[in-house]
Amino acid sequence: WNGDFFPNISNIQYEGPSSRNPLAYHWYNAEEEILGKKMKDWLRFSVAFWHTFRGDGGDPFGSPTKTWPWEDGSNSVQMAMTRMKANFEFLKKLGVERWCFHDRDIAPEGATLEETNRNLDTIISLAKELQLGTSIRPLWGTAQLFKHPRYMHGAATSPDIKVYAYAAAQVKKAMEVTHELGGENYVFWGGREGYQSLLNTDLKKELDHMATFLQSAASWKKKLGFNGTLLLEPKPQEPTKHQYDWDAATTIGFLQNYGLKDEFKLNVECNHATLSGHSCHHELETARINGMLGNIDANTGDPQTGWDTDQFLTDVTEATLIMLSVVKNGGLAPGGFNFDAKLRRESVDVEDLFIAHISGMDALARGLRNAAALLQDGVLTKLVEERYASFDSSLGTSIEAGEVGFEELEVKAFEWGEPTLSSGKQELAERILQSFT
Amino acid sequence: WNGDFFPNISNIQYEGPSSRNPLAYHWYNAEEEILGKKMKDWLRFSVAFWHTFRGDGGDPFGSPTKTWPWEDGSNSVQMAMTRMKANFEFLKKLGVERWCFHDRDIAPEGATLEETNRNLDTIISLAKELQLGTSIRPLWGTAQLFKHPRYMHGAATSPDIKVYAYAAAQVKKAMEVTHELGGENYVFWGGREGYQSLLNTDLKKELDHMATFLQSAASWKKKLGFNGTLLLEPKPQEPTKHQYDWDAATTIGFLQNYGLKDEFKLNVECNHATLSGHSCHHELETARINGMLGNIDANTGDPQTGWDTDQFLTDVTEATLIMLSVVKNGGLAPGGFNFDAKLRRESVDVEDLFIAHISGMDALARGLRNAAALLQDGVLTKLVEERYASFDSSLGTSIEAGEVGFEELEVKAFEWGEPTLSSGKQELAERILQSFT
Amino acid sequence: WNGDFFPNISNIQYEGPSSRNPLAYHWYNAEEEILGKKMKDWLRFSVAFWHTFRGDGGDPFGSPTKTWPWEDGSNSVQMAMTRMKANFEFLKKLGVERWCFHDRDIAPEGATLEETNRNLDTIISLAKELQLGTSIRPLWGTAQLFKHPRYMHGAATSPDIKVYAYAAAQVKKAMEVTHELGGENYVFWGGREGYQSLLNTDLKKELDHMATFLQSAASWKKKLGFNGTLLLEPKPQEPTKHQYDWDAATTIGFLQNYGLKDEFKLNVECNHATLSGHSCHHELETARINGMLGNIDANTGDPQTGWDTDQFLTDVTEATLIMLSVVKNGGLAPGGFNFDAKLRRESVDVEDLFIAHISGMDALARGLRNAAALLQDGVLTKLVEERYASFDSSLGTSIEAGEVGFEELEVKAFEWGEPTLSSGKQELAERILQSFT
Amino acid sequence: WNGDFFPNISNIQYEGPSSRNPLAYHWYNAEEEILGKKMKDWLRFSVAFWHTFRGDGGDPFGSPTKTWPWEDGSNSVQMAMTRMKANFEFLKKLGVERWCFHDRDIAPEGATLEETNRNLDTIISLAKELQLGTSIRPLWGTAQLFKHPRYMHGAATSPDIKVYAYAAAQVKKAMEVTHELGGENYVFWGGREGYQSLLNTDLKKELDHMATFLQSAASWKKKLGFNGTLLLEPKPQEPTKHQYDWDAATTIGFLQNYGLKDEFKLNVECNHATLSGHSCHHELETARINGMLGNIDANTGDPQTGWDTDQFLTDVTEATLIMLSVVKNGGLAPGGFNFDAKLRRESVDVEDLFIAHISGMDALARGLRNAAALLQDGVLTKLVEERYASFDSSLGTSIEAGEVGFEELEVKAFEWGEPTLSSGKQELAERILQSFT
Repeated sequence: WNGDFFPNISNIQYEGPSSRNPLAYHWYNAEEEILGKKMKDWLRFSVAFWHTFRGDGGDPFGSPTKTWPWEDGSNSVQMAMTRMKANFEFLKKLGVERWCFHDRDIAPEGATLEETNRNLDTIISLAKELQLGTSIRPLWGTAQLFKHPRYMHGAATSPDIKVYAYAAAQVKKAMEVTHELGGENYVFWGGREGYQSLLNTDLKKELDHMATFLQSAASWKKKLGFNGTLLLEPKPQEPTKHQYDWDAATTIGFLQNYGLKDEFKLNVECNHATLSGHSCHHELETARINGMLGNIDANTGDPQTGWDTDQFLTDVTEATLIMLSVVKNGGLAPGGFNFDAKLRRESVDVEDLFIAHISGMDALARGLRNAAALLQDGVLTKLVEERYASFDSSLGTSIEAGEVGFEELEVKAFEWGEPTLSSGKQELAERILQSFT
Repeated sequence: WNGDFFPNISNIQYEGPSSRNPLAYHWYNAEEEILGKKMKDWLRFSVAFWHTFRGDGGDPFGSPTKTWPWEDGSNSVQMAMTRMKANFEFLKKLGVERWCFHDRDIAPEGATLEETNRNLDTIISLAKELQLGTSIRPLWGTAQLFKHPRYMHGAATSPDIKVYAYAAAQVKKAMEVTHELGGENYVFWGGREGYQSLLNTDLKKELDHMATFLQSAASWKKKLGFNGTLLLEPKPQEPTKHQYDWDAATTIGFLQNYGLKDEFKLNVECNHATLSGHSCHHELETARINGMLGNIDANTGDPQTGWDTDQFLTDVTEATLIMLSVVKNGGLAPGGFNFDAKLRRESVDVEDLFIAHISGMDALARGLRNAAALLQDGVLTKLVEERYASFDSSLGTSIEAGEVGFEELEVKAFEWGEPTLSSGKQELAERILQSFT
Repeated sequence: WNGDFFPNISNIQYEGPSSRNPLAYHWYNAEEEILGKKMKDWLRFSVAFWHTFRGDGGDPFGSPTKTWPWEDGSNSVQMAMTRMKANFEFLKKLGVERWCFHDRDIAPEGATLEETNRNLDTIISLAKELQLGTSIRPLWGTAQLFKHPRYMHGAATSPDIKVYAYAAAQVKKAMEVTHELGGENYVFWGGREGYQSLLNTDLKKELDHMATFLQSAASWKKKLGFNGTLLLEPKPQEPTKHQYDWDAATTIGFLQNYGLKDEFKLNVECNHATLSGHSCHHELETARINGMLGNIDANTGDPQTGWDTDQFLTDVTEATLIMLSVVKNGGLAPGGFNFDAKLRRESVDVEDLFIAHISGMDALARGLRNAAALLQDGVLTKLVEERYASFDSSLGTSIEAGEVGFEELEVKAFEWGEPTLSSGKQELAERILQSFT
Repeated sequence: WNGDFFPNISNIQYEGPSSRNPLAYHWYNAEEEILGKKMKDWLRFSVAFWHTFRGDGGDPFGSPTKTWPWEDGSNSVQMAMTRMKANFEFLKKLGVERWCFHDRDIAPEGATLEETNRNLDTIISLAKELQLGTSIRPLWGTAQLFKHPRYMHGAATSPDIKVYAYAAAQVKKAMEVTHELGGENYVFWGGREGYQSLLNTDLKKELDHMATFLQSAASWKKKLGFNGTLLLEPKPQEPTKHQYDWDAATTIGFLQNYGLKDEFKLNVECNHATLSGHSCHHELETARINGMLGNIDANTGDPQTGWDTDQFLTDVTEATLIMLSVVKNGGLAPGGFNFDAKLRRESVDVEDLFIAHISGMDALARGLRNAAALLQDGVLTKLVEERYASFDSSLGTSIEAGEVGFEELEVKAFEWGEPTLSSGKQELAERILQSFT
């Protein structure tokens, strides 16, 4: 089987770490078990339709560069159907069973919302057909609420009530089609929910509207019978100067403030993490300890640039830290790893699409192997536990239960005198990590 | 009256905008009324004892540079008493009625906690005596929980239970002495409550401990009969790689998560705001719309440096934005503006201490005048209101009340068709601001 | 005269600082003399054709938003002619006599280079005609070497010799038409002269090629008889991960290294300055003291964002610092201030184009007034001179002449003993600046 | 042999990659040959005396935390002698033959410069004695021109002529003692050669003074008969707001501008690189292609913090990129890798000093192995060469020789027509790198 779109690329095989073949997996072996679960079940990889099939290489200073052989230069429904077929062939050749989409990536906007919905229905029918006999399903769907000019002031946070209503109608439909395809999650990415200037913005009103909108989404989910997870995706900036879902802590706080915490989880993106001034590991851990880690948008940024570069994550140390969080979380299901990552503008060979995904998958696969080994070894875990051992006492337990006030503690402080200093052992912890990467 | 410490500096007078005298106020006229309130009541300025009387000009690459004439090179109780007298003379000459302190700035650490407490009591007695017949009072007190090696792993978040207890005893005492002096607020600054590396840190446990500690502080406040406001001060980094009270949103979310939101407000520092990737105005507005704006640490950072430079805020535009938030907040009382700002290391003249504070006060005073004029003019306010006018409808009201679901909104979206685009008028808003600065 | 394009906007008039009319100048009074020169001769304002007439509001996440009434949705030569007429009407109504362009902004790319050149000739003819009887001339022209996919790897630094040749042909023509219109300068903006990854880049070869290309441009200038200034524009990043003309110091060093320093000056852009980690004032001063300050791209960035936002500079303090450099430079002629600044994506009213430029012009006009007053006052200048007074000695002169070695200096050091410390007086300097803004 | 200072630490041995012993080398095998040279000769490791023996854990918010058993709390000459012995024992146990120092780290400042020089002579005598029978020598020495208040405005760039002279005398002596100990290089680190504010600074004068000072150093070197390399160390910020030796390109440009390029090379520090907005690899390559790569200060920063954290570099990918530059440079000799890196403030065990250095050495050793394998494999090298192959033509050669003008190139452009696009293959390059790390 050569396929219709990638005739020169065979199904990608696992060849092991000694392979130098860039079109083979060196570390990802889908069916191999790690810590009692198959690699493919830990990793639940997903291809992002928008980057892989709609990314054209355009940037703020340049026109599109990609001219994939299957593209005819149009944005017709016919073209959309062809692309969807390419998507399924790509998934099969990679050996990946999940994909993610925005409604408007997969089907063109029509002259009216009605027409747009019909276009979408056409593509969804095709996707259902292509799914038949495969285990390919959407990891999640979402609505594109940022590209069309109508959303220039935001969607749920637009000052225009008509835009708010339009966005509601669009999300309603996007949730329906995600559900129809058997999608396991539905994502809200902030898009233009943020501000360009506080001078012309009513901050409180916009946050209130965003909460109301999300509440309606949660209600609609139930009515629709969709059992997937609703996910919010933090991002600090871009396209707006300041996005409302700045980072994990801000987003969790927002959800809690508006009584929405039980209805949503987070979709953490590594490049968004670093743009917000945190490590990706920090954002994952913040989500995890709050029980809110639902999905990962697997990518990386350039540490020296201040915008979202959405590069494939290829660094092993970074991947190991990510997988430490994921393993501690017991995996991500029903979420997974969506490659929200794109080829560089200058990469214009079809082959590059494969190489990029393979690198990203191998990095996380190797990270999983490292994390498993590190956790099984147990030395690092023990180092951490021992640092806090003094709280494993009856007084410690009482303190943690909120039963000990300042007066009792003062008595103890006088009794104990000056505490002794223990080394934080950060270099040892780094040395241990280094040994496992 | 020449005083004992600043014999060459007279009481600082208001001379009006045309003055070129650097040792006079050009914009701050304490008793003048703006929007129905005296300038001094809007601004409630405070001198930070630590920077002004303990700042020695040392930095990570250099030894102290300041050799104030009243310093004898020691850290004795006697020296501490002298400094406190200098503080009161400084306040009087500036015409400022508030000051802020850490416990360990004003009195030296002794060999034991008991001795340390006695040292503190000695100084507090003196301060009370110096207060007599004046309206000078602490704006707030706080405990220095970061300088001593015992706190190297944090105070409330130290893994060592003895350090936790020691910190509790220290805060208990600091709250007592703040109360004794008639302080109006008590501040918690994160200090070393954060992490240097996630590899050796139990994030959840540390956050839990921090919450328990703050809960105990709130309980102690009631028992003590202290009616002041408890304030948390967000800061993203430094001294740790990642502070827990990262920014306003994170801190508010933390308080809410642990049921502490009603017990605390925020002390927003402008330099901390920009280090966290936000404008100071953003942090103030985030605190304000959540009803959490309690105090401002008035300073500014260098926009090109990645650490806390704690410079005096002298920029008029920035000051105008700050005062817009403060006026909308109805002022800050019982909080105020604490100058958490220091002379540059190379500024070693006593006169520089005055010039720096006068510049900072004049900037905010001019900001207040501008903000008042801008709000009275009303054009900017109207511009914002008109942007959201479409929600001033019965449907808008219902949406905001959470009564309108996606199905009804979809009906409206189909009915309304494509929304029209309105300009965001950001340049006009900036032009209006420009006219008032 | 109402004009064909902006019928509702009259010629913009000077109304003085008390005006609140956003469509009037409050500080810019073209014919008024400051320090012996007319404001318009100090400021030499220029409109950037690309932002004002080709900026469509598109961004990496969104489609265009602007629908100016004169646009027909095409990129035809006819449309290009209409836009050029709009440009001249805009300049006249603003009272600005200069404009800047990229070759491809003003005329569409054809199917071949020959056709593209013909398109350009058509528009140049029209522009010459429109110039007649006016004093409107290009401040500078430049070639757009970054938008077309052929330039995706750079132009002069492309690894493909055909692209290098194509770029040479394009620049040759762009210099010709700039000359034909009486342009006073010609600019090289780095575009994609930089790298996305060092892994696939031969850094030395690319820098060598860039130098060879610029040498050819300098030769062509002479052959062409063009007497304008050639300008390089530093920028650190974007569109590439790392641009070769990183900042002023790097660019000057590059020119010197390749023997090109006498052939070029710099075009300093404020937003590029801050993206490179410097203040705009730093970049201007670095260029100025090297005799390389040729032109200013007047704009500003958002201090919290890591990409080029190209906003109109409206801050008075910043404008004052810029004008201090410009006045010390004796002005910028034959360079000037090009507004390399654009409306926000959400600003879609024709009126916004005017408001934005007026704000930018007023800011710099006010900055000029402040800088003149500050320099005439002389207190700040004197403060600086006095700091270095110890070098105004015969030994100082000898040191500065390179005549004093370490051995003689050691003798003096032993003789003089420990130096005394003088205050750097930074707060006083800031206070003085504050008094003049 | 247990030694006097580290009785519990044996000589560190190579145990190979499978070892989990943190106190053994897993990758660094000093005598093993890689690409025809011993690992120790490629790597030429050096311990930084200041961090390892004078780093006390103090930070801007905290007092010292380290209490090494050999410290008596004083800064006496006797204590300095003890520390020097500890240094030699540390070097021997690590198996490292080089160390670096500031004059004031190793010997205390006296009441006068004469006394200070005598103190220094005492320690130098001891160091010479300790060197006997070993191959331990200084990699380089330098003068500490930033810690003492006299240098608060800079040393060579101080506005005070007495400070300039004092600095000259100090550097003269530091060069002498470096030479006396057989040091192979001498380093100038910017210290406070920079500005805090442009408002009070004469930028041109300060740069001129810095150049004059360095010229005198180069002259003194010759007179002294010192054959080592003089090195400048770029750093963008800290302690000043803006350091003059901002980055490699700025520093090279400065040297060239003042005719000093042949007298100096660069000491590139990775943490300084990233603070200046560049990758470490960029700075190394910039130095290398200019023939200016003389030494590396091996450390790393925290990618999320904006100050110099001086951490030990432990990341393998980063180390591989560094070693690619070093191998292409033919090694660094007579320079080497100085660990300008320190323990975290919270790491207070003597053992931590060893673990940190071992991690840093192992990272670079592994990087060397990877770089050698990558270069021997040749696939990446070939990928780069092929990208530029079109210049390997006679026209390409003529262009590179500066013999082809715009007119000839235009002819070729018309002849060739539209260039075709080739993929930049960045993902493939990253995939290849990934395979070798």
